[in-house]
Amino acid sequence: MPEQSIAQLSRRSFLRAVGVTGGAGTMFATMGALGLAPASAAPPPFDPPKASDFHLTGRRPGTVIVLGGGIAGLVSAYELGKAGYRVTVLEPRDRTGGRNFTVRGGDTLTDLHGFAQRARFSKGQYMNAGPARIAQWMVTLDYCRELGVPIEVFTNSNADAYIYHSSMPAGQPMRYRTAKADTFGYVSELLAKATDQGALDAELTAEDRERLMEFLTDFGDLGETLEYTGSSRRGFTAWPGESGAPGEILGDVPSASAVFASGVGRHFSFEFEFDQAMLMFQPVGGMDRLPRALTRAIGPQKIKLGCRATSLTQSASGVSVTYTDAAGCAHLTTADYVIAAMPPHLLTGLTHNLGADVVAALTAIRPSSAGKIGLEYRSRWWETDHRIYGGITETDLDLVHVWHPSYGYHGDRGVMIGYYHYGATADRYSAMSPKDRETTAVALGERIYGAKYRTELDSSFSIAWREVPHLEAAWHSFAGNSPQSPIFKPLVEPAGRVLFAGDWLSNMDAWQHGAILAARKAVTTLHARALAR
Amino acid sequence: MPEQSIAQLSRRSFLRAVGVTGGAGTMFATMGALGLAPASAAPPPFDPPKASDFHLTGRRPGTVIVLGGGIAGLVSAYELGKAGYRVTVLEPRDRTGGRNFTVRGGDTLTDLHGFAQRARFSKGQYMNAGPARIAQWMVTLDYCRELGVPIEVFTNSNADAYIYHSSMPAGQPMRYRTAKADTFGYVSELLAKATDQGALDAELTAEDRERLMEFLTDFGDLGETLEYTGSSRRGFTAWPGESGAPGEILGDVPSASAVFASGVGRHFSFEFEFDQAMLMFQPVGGMDRLPRALTRAIGPQKIKLGCRATSLTQSASGVSVTYTDAAGCAHLTTADYVIAAMPPHLLTGLTHNLGADVVAALTAIRPSSAGKIGLEYRSRWWETDHRIYGGITETDLDLVHVWHPSYGYHGDRGVMIGYYHYGATADRYSAMSPKDRETTAVALGERIYGAKYRTELDSSFSIAWREVPHLEAAWHSFAGNSPQSPIFKPLVEPAGRVLFAGDWLSNMDAWQHGAILAARKAVTTLHARALAR
Repeated sequence: MPEQSIAQLSRRSFLRAVGVTGGAGTMFATMGALGLAPASAAPPPFDPPKASDFHLTGRRPGTVIVLGGGIAGLVSAYELGKAGYRVTVLEPRDRTGGRNFTVRGGDTLTDLHGFAQRARFSKGQYMNAGPARIAQWMVTLDYCRELGVPIEVFTNSNADAYIYHSSMPAGQPMRYRTAKADTFGYVSELLAKATDQGALDAELTAEDRERLMEFLTDFGDLGETLEYTGSSRRGFTAWPGESGAPGEILGDVPSASAVFASGVGRHFSFEFEFDQAMLMFQPVGGMDRLPRALTRAIGPQKIKLGCRATSLTQSASGVSVTYTDAAGCAHLTTADYVIAAMPPHLLTGLTHNLGADVVAALTAIRPSSAGKIGLEYRSRWWETDHRIYGGITETDLDLVHVWHPSYGYHGDRGVMIGYYHYGATADRYSAMSPKDRETTAVALGERIYGAKYRTELDSSFSIAWREVPHLEAAWHSFAGNSPQSPIFKPLVEPAGRVLFAGDWLSNMDAWQHGAILAARKAVTTLHARALAR
Repeated sequence: MPEQSIAQLSRRSFLRAVGVTGGAGTMFATMGALGLAPASAAPPPFDPPKASDFHLTGRRPGTVIVLGGGIAGLVSAYELGKAGYRVTVLEPRDRTGGRNFTVRGGDTLTDLHGFAQRARFSKGQYMNAGPARIAQWMVTLDYCRELGVPIEVFTNSNADAYIYHSSMPAGQPMRYRTAKADTFGYVSELLAKATDQGALDAELTAEDRERLMEFLTDFGDLGETLEYTGSSRRGFTAWPGESGAPGEILGDVPSASAVFASGVGRHFSFEFEFDQAMLMFQPVGGMDRLPRALTRAIGPQKIKLGCRATSLTQSASGVSVTYTDAAGCAHLTTADYVIAAMPPHLLTGLTHNLGADVVAALTAIRPSSAGKIGLEYRSRWWETDHRIYGGITETDLDLVHVWHPSYGYHGDRGVMIGYYHYGATADRYSAMSPKDRETTAVALGERIYGAKYRTELDSSFSIAWREVPHLEAAWHSFAGNSPQSPIFKPLVEPAGRVLFAGDWLSNMDAWQHGAILAARKAVTTLHARALAR
């Protein structure tokens, strides 16, 4: 998910945003700390509302309406419910989870273009159309633990997955392992050469240089002449086997010039990013195991599906909400508090009295586009023929990312994510019919993987998030503002009885982690106000 | 497993052994192929013996005795059995699998020192004492598929796992992500600086240099001044959260000198190696799911447990084998062929008439030591407190490698591999009592992880492979010979009715892949001879 947020808010400006400036370290100081890991890496402390908070103070838990049954709304309702608040969730769709949407056979979607799809995936096959990965440090995992949702590894990077640029011949992608061996080999050789020639004598002591050379020899798999001439790390055309079958290392080592010209190295930093580095995880059986578990824990009777809020009016004594139910009937309901956990750009569509500052803040958060297509295959040819068990193939085609499934290894069938793209590309595919999206995606994928990409295909399901009713975005952008900008203050520190929550009100937009922590903050604020009454 | 084989046979000499010489690529040629992936990466073709081979030629399948019920022996028996050969496996231990040994509660081991252990692991908890990981390209996966053994990711590398060197303060290990960010940051900065100063003008064209700089800026997360001053890739002391909580990047960026002096970079190449790069896999529920499935497929009645071969005599018409059963009674049996799939250094202990060349070949294969300890904990504190879900912590302590479990995430309990070491260190720990091994290992691990490494411990089980009866090795070395050396010809191309199989007769010693392909080769040779009779 987060490629987008990284693209919109460059890493460098992110560093600035979070207050890291150049003074963090002096470059070539001979002394320095090692930047060791802190003792604990657990999520921030959270003191959830407890039933005893009311018992001990003689107060009674109030009523809360939560607008939106996505992750932020569900976590808000779950945490408040544990303390005894009487919570009602209004969710306009026919399921909870919001963008956390796992598509299985029989699931339907009619988008705002009017394109209607019914997934024909086989039993046990699914695609996570929205969030699909969880980093180890994310609070999302704590809810999986607390709610008993089993997890397994999400295969976010794989040495055997491909890199395919349109400059490569059809059917001849490059494996990550090969691209890394060559790039790291030449980077090491060049730096070793420069160091050897004295180019860094002013920067490094003799001892530093010796240690650097030792590292480079190993890191680049350099020979005794400190040159890169290929490596078993590239992979083999025939893998080592029994005696007499020593294997044949993948040859035709390209020149340094060819390696840098190919641009394969631009895909490497992804796996070092703070939010994408392996190991990553996913719930066993689909990401929606999490909202399903939250829904069960809240109590499904407290969640009104098919109910779309239409107005919101706060007063000194409470908030009244009007909404339309699945049958089209209008209702009026009131509560002590509201947590608005809807998409911010749809919240502006409600009639409300929240004031111009709130409108300005909500309007500064803009919806972003992304699309995914799930392709179910009648065989797992990527495992048997390509020996790729999971991971992501990176392309410079419209497909951008192609995902191999992280579940069902060795099964009869599997669902590939045939594209995962954003922005203008996503908008272009969004305008195509689902059938055209499939045809286009398969034709491109065939260039990477060969004929089985087409011949083994069974069915597909595609999603264009900007066109999904009641969500209308894959994630959001902040028009150049940091999430800490004062413009968002009316949402982050709301004055009245209406609080806000969503990944869009966090520093981790497009991640459930952000939605959860924003929900916790709203719940904490609400509870403090309730206890202060 | 393969660290040892890499240590014994350096990568460079391996490259030489397999015939890769310096001519593979001209270093700075401006033109060059890209070294693209071959269309197929499947294991080598194998035409297994088929029942129809006999039906169609009017022959009858013969009899075969397999010495040893490890992976090579089991695969031999399995493949021959499919064609109708009448196979008997003699296995001296009370289980099949050989070094493929998954230790569960109740399992016992008395080693050659006389140390007796009974594992006290809880239900569902286990340690893979022998092989534990499978690369995607390995033929081992094909047997998992064929036999219906489910697989899952083995977490061979993890950005959140630790590096701990004894120069670091107790309780302050460094995370991989931090070590990589700093090392790659400074390597990029230094090479950018050298390039900028013209040190590589003779090596690279202006266009090459521009592309290189673009790569380095991204790879090292360099600022506009091309300097490394820290990065969100290092990790955070407080992770980004809700609005108002932008996160706090792990600071105290060490100097380049300190980073290279720390030596953390020497752990990075492991994950690029052809046999260790992620994604790696393991059978769900324990590595011994594979030998168990092979045993079932062969037919357990064909496998004589507790039966130790004592002599081997081949003649023109067959082979006679004497063995001692579990009750100590001697037996004589005969067959058309024998596949000797025992440890080579124990095979020399049999009375036999295989000749001096065979003895010389077997004697040139030397046993290697390795040890592992499984530590069962009453909580998964590494997940909750350290946010480490799997992966390997590398140390310069006697522990060498410390493994976090790749299964049972979020469970009540878990088994860490507290050490995995080889050679002299393994021999030293082998001589200690199991209790002393535990005490020593836990005291060292506590320096990395803190008090819970001791206080949460429930029980342990340790193995010293050199001292395991009937196996007496973790793997083998070849005394400087390549597996293709003519000295091994009497084993690889045996003259008579006795064939040999084992990982020790492959280019992938210490890997089941090697054992399986050696077995396939023995089976193919045997079958060709049977059909030529």
